[in-house]
Amino acid sequence: VKGTFDLPAPRTERRYQEHEVANPRRVIALRDAIPARPKVLCALQGRHVLSARDLSRKLLVQIFRRAAEFESGVVPRKTPMAGRILISAFLVAANTRTRLSFESASLRQGGSVMTIGGGIGGLETPVDLSEAFNTYGDVVALRTEDQASFRSMLNDSRIPVINAGDGMDENPTQAMVDLYTLFKWRPDLLQKSVPAGRRIRIGIMGEPRQTRTIRSLLLMLCPFKEALERVVVFGRYAKPFSEGQREELEQAGLPLECTVELYPDMTIMECFHKELSRLDMIYVHPIQPLEMSRLGRLEAISLLKPGMMLLHPEVRVKELLDNVDDSPYNGYFAQARAAVFVRMAVLEAILNRT
Amino acid sequence: VKGTFDLPAPRTERRYQEHEVANPRRVIALRDAIPARPKVLCALQGRHVLSARDLSRKLLVQIFRRAAEFESGVVPRKTPMAGRILISAFLVAANTRTRLSFESASLRQGGSVMTIGGGIGGLETPVDLSEAFNTYGDVVALRTEDQASFRSMLNDSRIPVINAGDGMDENPTQAMVDLYTLFKWRPDLLQKSVPAGRRIRIGIMGEPRQTRTIRSLLLMLCPFKEALERVVVFGRYAKPFSEGQREELEQAGLPLECTVELYPDMTIMECFHKELSRLDMIYVHPIQPLEMSRLGRLEAISLLKPGMMLLHPEVRVKELLDNVDDSPYNGYFAQARAAVFVRMAVLEAILNRT
Amino acid sequence: VKGTFDLPAPRTERRYQEHEVANPRRVIALRDAIPARPKVLCALQGRHVLSARDLSRKLLVQIFRRAAEFESGVVPRKTPMAGRILISAFLVAANTRTRLSFESASLRQGGSVMTIGGGIGGLETPVDLSEAFNTYGDVVALRTEDQASFRSMLNDSRIPVINAGDGMDENPTQAMVDLYTLFKWRPDLLQKSVPAGRRIRIGIMGEPRQTRTIRSLLLMLCPFKEALERVVVFGRYAKPFSEGQREELEQAGLPLECTVELYPDMTIMECFHKELSRLDMIYVHPIQPLEMSRLGRLEAISLLKPGMMLLHPEVRVKELLDNVDDSPYNGYFAQARAAVFVRMAVLEAILNRT
Repeated sequence: VKGTFDLPAPRTERRYQEHEVANPRRVIALRDAIPARPKVLCALQGRHVLSARDLSRKLLVQIFRRAAEFESGVVPRKTPMAGRILISAFLVAANTRTRLSFESASLRQGGSVMTIGGGIGGLETPVDLSEAFNTYGDVVALRTEDQASFRSMLNDSRIPVINAGDGMDENPTQAMVDLYTLFKWRPDLLQKSVPAGRRIRIGIMGEPRQTRTIRSLLLMLCPFKEALERVVVFGRYAKPFSEGQREELEQAGLPLECTVELYPDMTIMECFHKELSRLDMIYVHPIQPLEMSRLGRLEAISLLKPGMMLLHPEVRVKELLDNVDDSPYNGYFAQARAAVFVRMAVLEAILNRT
Repeated sequence: VKGTFDLPAPRTERRYQEHEVANPRRVIALRDAIPARPKVLCALQGRHVLSARDLSRKLLVQIFRRAAEFESGVVPRKTPMAGRILISAFLVAANTRTRLSFESASLRQGGSVMTIGGGIGGLETPVDLSEAFNTYGDVVALRTEDQASFRSMLNDSRIPVINAGDGMDENPTQAMVDLYTLFKWRPDLLQKSVPAGRRIRIGIMGEPRQTRTIRSLLLMLCPFKEALERVVVFGRYAKPFSEGQREELEQAGLPLECTVELYPDMTIMECFHKELSRLDMIYVHPIQPLEMSRLGRLEAISLLKPGMMLLHPEVRVKELLDNVDDSPYNGYFAQARAAVFVRMAVLEAILNRT
Repeated sequence: VKGTFDLPAPRTERRYQEHEVANPRRVIALRDAIPARPKVLCALQGRHVLSARDLSRKLLVQIFRRAAEFESGVVPRKTPMAGRILISAFLVAANTRTRLSFESASLRQGGSVMTIGGGIGGLETPVDLSEAFNTYGDVVALRTEDQASFRSMLNDSRIPVINAGDGMDENPTQAMVDLYTLFKWRPDLLQKSVPAGRRIRIGIMGEPRQTRTIRSLLLMLCPFKEALERVVVFGRYAKPFSEGQREELEQAGLPLECTVELYPDMTIMECFHKELSRLDMIYVHPIQPLEMSRLGRLEAISLLKPGMMLLHPEVRVKELLDNVDDSPYNGYFAQARAAVFVRMAVLEAILNRT
């Protein structure tokens, strides 16, 4: 027996071509490339996640493995967060996808969510709110307007806080999502010694000095520096780094370059022509040179290296990306979809009771 | 042992008289009038619910039966949505009751809810959001500002989408609620052949060409055309229908009439005098001729046919309805209360795992 | 095995000194001071909680006991609210902590929550919304903009309503939190006859005639009048009480005094000098004389009686309180943290099925 009418069904396949990273086999490949060492994740138990600086390579790799287990759907149905409450406190305007991926990650594991979005309207002080959180919830995903509020709330917290933006000017779980996506594509980059010819060249389009996601990504790349040939920063400003930022990264061994130094006399357009064709991954940040938006559609695509992958952390740069949605360069849809699995792994590890 | 003081209790009976449809026996009557054919509901499994056009009479009738089972409270407690997430995405200002009825319908069945209300503030593009939904949730109740956004999100969705407004210019689950309420009152209208003398005359106060709920209702009435004597549209405009709308409905056999054609020389007030007394059900839409609001209170009631039923889909038309809350014409409270049961039936069928 | 890096951990101890009431042993002391009589809580089953007037001493004391059981963590894990929905309807701007404590209280007991925050935007009338609530939820925590809306929604409700502000110009569950905090500090005040020398002097900084939390607190103090030496109201206005308010309180035996009467010729600063040093508890309300904010930091602290306790119901009075966060006068953090346990007790009793 069925209805006379056929109801429209959701598509079962991806709409667009997308980058090879979107192939479900990549998830399996990443999972199988990492030996399971679940005890390593105990380092997260009951802890804050504030900065990429605090996260060891060993720990990150196990988070990626666990996320891949979640994404591949092989994890037996458990509800480690049953009876636990995630406070999803996006005290500035709620950034939709980051908030939703945290909330889904809690709900998917049997947890509950309390949302505070779009500000507390000056009614509450950080300390009062934080003291209340101590008994109202079990873990907080926190985004504040400024570092001072974040610090203040953190200081009073007796439950784990996940920095979802503005604390320490970072967004470490986003960087985990970025690297998870990179390693799904190239699990071979997780080997301790990557042959020189296999190392990748990453382009960062944006200003490291003022962009949270880029700050976290660069820090999180350091433990994986053996996989990198170069990290090239495309920026407009003479000083793309904040004080001490570049020094810290280079001391950790990150092979950094900036187009403003490489090509001081070139326009940013000319820098593109010089560099785009050699990059294996480009990380596009929305707050970036206006010049980039004037880059012609076809021209931009024609410059890209075959097989390379475009990521963007949260909000679309329309001019650059619209025309590559349906192309083998589009890694950002896979990146968006993966956000929930990475955050499931983080929440599970933090709230682990054993 | 009890407290010294007596605490105030909620009323146990309805506050107002209301239409006979509010009598709980009507729910039983509807349930018993429809033979259970649960397999018919499998047509909804994993499918989108976008337009009344896609819903067969057979399927609708089984949804009504299931909703009546929920409303009558006989359904054994199960949690078919346990571990499943409804994304309640009301990307325009959140219409309270529609959103809440969807969310309650999910929670009542053990599911979870993620709410996006009041806009995404330009931060996200439809395609990015939709791609994220594919892994963050299991079903989406979607209301967008325009059809283009709806279409765009739908195109990228690999999970079922329920049109909660603006996709295809319809709101099909609201029309289900409307018809569910009608058939609770008159289950006899579900018989294949309704004697001419038992058929009903429905008045639509509003503009079909631009009103989502009316568009869906008229389409959903087509499979039940044998129960209708006439559907009379009260409108101010010379062209109450959008292009092709009337032709489609009449081809499907709906006996349509418009007061602008029936009484071209009459004021809308005179049309009321002519028609109100013959209507068995009036569907009042908030966006409607201002003239209607000037209709005197007592006069309006005095024109209504004894036993007739007033429905209104979402927002009150104060001038017309305030004075009939406590009257045997008030069917709209029962309609509001029923919304959750109809949407429980829809969600259950879409997410059915068997 | 552990990560190379040590992740920062939340503090395990309170950050500040705080009042003795914050000592976890106080929770045990309160619990043990009250004989368990769970049947008394049946008086709340299926009832509204609207006014402190409706709550007997016997009932309040059992709520405090149950809240202490929750706060001490001895309650075996049960989910009395499984399958039940709290409608958290803060129809004005959502007051963060009150809303969150209600929502956490529901989630902690296995219940679900539907939030309506920040207004219904004129789209819905109170009666329509309330009728919908009757089937969408099981209990409503309701804050409205005015008493008329509250009354209107209450009149149509067939499920229990908890007054979270503006109904009857009260906020009774906040007063429960206030007294719970007081009795944690001084369980001896619950004895039927408190020796004269042990009775306490309470200062109320604010205007009882217009402040919901103060109105509820004064009413709820009446059944505990034997524990009070004096309740001194610090206010600027010649008439600190609304019509009949003082008479009702004094008839119930509350030993009230107002500084405007005690010291008609003194400035408010001089009143402070006269009274602050004798008060055992001060209840600071944010909407209060501006003069108070000019009170010097050190000076204010130097006037306080050793061991006394400062409470404030919801929003910080920056000028007065900032400098006492880290002091033995700070009882308001403990008060904020306790809010969820008191509301757990209230929700459990209202929704008790046995």
